[in-house]
Amino acid sequence: MKRIMTLAACCLMSLGCMAQQQLGQRPRVKSPVINADGSVTFNLYAPSAQRVSVNGDFEEIRGKRLDMTKQENGVWTVTTEPLNPELYSYSLTVDGQRFIDPGNSYVNRDISTLSNIFIVTKSTGDKGHLYSVNDVPHGTLSRVWYDSPTLGQQRRMTVYLPAAYDGKKSFPVMYLLHGHGGDETAWGDLGRASQIMDNLIAEGKCVPMIVVMPNGNPTCNAAPGWWHEGMYTPDGNAFRDRGAKASMEESFMDIVNYVDSHYKTIAKRSGRAVTGLSMGGGHTFGISRMYPETFDYYGLQSAAAGIPRDRTKFDEQMARLFGSKPKLYWIAIGKEDFLMQGNTQLRQYLDSKSYPYEYYENDGGHIWRNWRIYLTMFAQKIFK
Amino acid sequence: MKRIMTLAACCLMSLGCMAQQQLGQRPRVKSPVINADGSVTFNLYAPSAQRVSVNGDFEEIRGKRLDMTKQENGVWTVTTEPLNPELYSYSLTVDGQRFIDPGNSYVNRDISTLSNIFIVTKSTGDKGHLYSVNDVPHGTLSRVWYDSPTLGQQRRMTVYLPAAYDGKKSFPVMYLLHGHGGDETAWGDLGRASQIMDNLIAEGKCVPMIVVMPNGNPTCNAAPGWWHEGMYTPDGNAFRDRGAKASMEESFMDIVNYVDSHYKTIAKRSGRAVTGLSMGGGHTFGISRMYPETFDYYGLQSAAAGIPRDRTKFDEQMARLFGSKPKLYWIAIGKEDFLMQGNTQLRQYLDSKSYPYEYYENDGGHIWRNWRIYLTMFAQKIFK
Repeated sequence: MKRIMTLAACCLMSLGCMAQQQLGQRPRVKSPVINADGSVTFNLYAPSAQRVSVNGDFEEIRGKRLDMTKQENGVWTVTTEPLNPELYSYSLTVDGQRFIDPGNSYVNRDISTLSNIFIVTKSTGDKGHLYSVNDVPHGTLSRVWYDSPTLGQQRRMTVYLPAAYDGKKSFPVMYLLHGHGGDETAWGDLGRASQIMDNLIAEGKCVPMIVVMPNGNPTCNAAPGWWHEGMYTPDGNAFRDRGAKASMEESFMDIVNYVDSHYKTIAKRSGRAVTGLSMGGGHTFGISRMYPETFDYYGLQSAAAGIPRDRTKFDEQMARLFGSKPKLYWIAIGKEDFLMQGNTQLRQYLDSKSYPYEYYENDGGHIWRNWRIYLTMFAQKIFK
Repeated sequence: MKRIMTLAACCLMSLGCMAQQQLGQRPRVKSPVINADGSVTFNLYAPSAQRVSVNGDFEEIRGKRLDMTKQENGVWTVTTEPLNPELYSYSLTVDGQRFIDPGNSYVNRDISTLSNIFIVTKSTGDKGHLYSVNDVPHGTLSRVWYDSPTLGQQRRMTVYLPAAYDGKKSFPVMYLLHGHGGDETAWGDLGRASQIMDNLIAEGKCVPMIVVMPNGNPTCNAAPGWWHEGMYTPDGNAFRDRGAKASMEESFMDIVNYVDSHYKTIAKRSGRAVTGLSMGGGHTFGISRMYPETFDYYGLQSAAAGIPRDRTKFDEQMARLFGSKPKLYWIAIGKEDFLMQGNTQLRQYLDSKSYPYEYYENDGGHIWRNWRIYLTMFAQKIFK
């Protein structure tokens, strides 16, 4: 047995060397380094570059490039001010070309753009901690293919089952919708949905629930690279001219029916919530009018929603919706969001009719930083 | 409603512009471009770079960098010879620093190294087609957390359920094990396991089956970034000194028990196969000796396997294993694999005892290109 172990050890070392050789001629520098005070140091080996900078969604240095300084060994470096607890994304620009940081294995894709990510966390309960994978029970994340009779397609959705899901007990369902350019992977990757849900459930801050994240593009079956169009360059509009058989809203009950027939759900209004960001907020708005007695909880996040000029049908829909007394109609948006005007008109309309809703406004614009906050808030408001 | 649509259209355009602005000052060039003859053109905008090259696993130019040529507009370019149908991975080297191609949204991670991928396919039935997502019924891929009593951990495995899985009919299970530095995502990402299985099943070349891809590192609960150690830089050895409570082989029945109790499986020997690559081939070898009547099909792919010096217990285990008459004991390895010697010794041992096994030897070494072939072959040999 010892000989096998020695052989195995040799194999492992050889594999390690092979992997090392694949990295190029130079030893890698460590990047990013998250320092004890929450500042972050970025390093890149690029001895012949003329200008290297970090471009990140650091609130503290927003709108500014963070120029890196070249050291004698050819490594460019820069350290940020201390950053607040948060999930950050960034890229490097080397002489005008954007690259991801070769020192960082962790990336997210937004439409066609890959960015590196890292998390700053200081204490239990801060946003960095909430977005991290902690030592708590974890839910299962599945990429599920389902039939949509309305769209005439096999389509993909992401399903989060809470750790307590055992196939016997029934759970409520939150339908969580992505925005333009997104897909069924967006809320899990950019939105940290499974980490947020794991942590909120473990802390007893929200009830265990199933979270369903469908693909909201009726002209795509699934995320780029995961359906038969191949490895195209995503641009969010590539398939808009194909002509969908129906809209997302019109085909939405295919998803609800699939979920109710394949999982142990509380298959009635009190066990259903729907929320989405931007385009998905618009979908939520449409779904709330089309199926007014199907869901008890609605969340419009930075929603692409507005009041139509011809209001006849709209007025009827809204009257029926609020006549059915949903338990929550929640509108959330950032002060700088470019969709503020439509949301303001919607709130004025609701006020004029004395329809009850909750409103949350915070800093910032049309960004994932806000949508993670809205998910965290909405999840704690529902099924209680 | 028209006004809502107009508003929505404006929102979408604004979002598109925002995404565009994030890309940097220069328009992106398209890269890679797969040409009709199977050659591939790579392009990178890097006006002040001195030397830019492509490093890929192109069999045709193996061991050579493919130097790119700078054009007047600052875009470096190179076109390969026509490539055979295959999934290829590559990176770019700019003045000595390895980067992934900013034009390509598709990446795989191998240990800590991200590489871009693309597929060349010429006709139905070639390897490129087999590794692509085609317009066929798709199985569901789940990242499942399960309890391992033996390791005292909540751990993660990837489970592929075939499209025909409906929770009523029972299916056989292939356990598919990764190598050193890998994790429960390796076979799905680098090995294209779900595409291979979808396509083989759709073509009637293998029976519909469940495929279970566990994490084979007893000191890690899950893939990097997916457990509570945070976003560390993976190196395959980082957690080796922590001291696992048991080995992968010793804890393996926790996985089988979980799968049999949570899915509709053919929970007996004739419905179970186990196969793995490199370290996972070693695990398969160990599992075949520890649980000789649990599986009917074994596949050792480029296995880290050998004969121990003290053979007393080993001889007993092997006699019991082959006395139980498994339906398949398959050994596959490439001519240039650095583990050939141990595999040759194992085959000599099996020959000396007249133990029946099948052997497949092909070109190449210890590479994913071969492991995708071995999975494709093994899947067609089992449960028939």
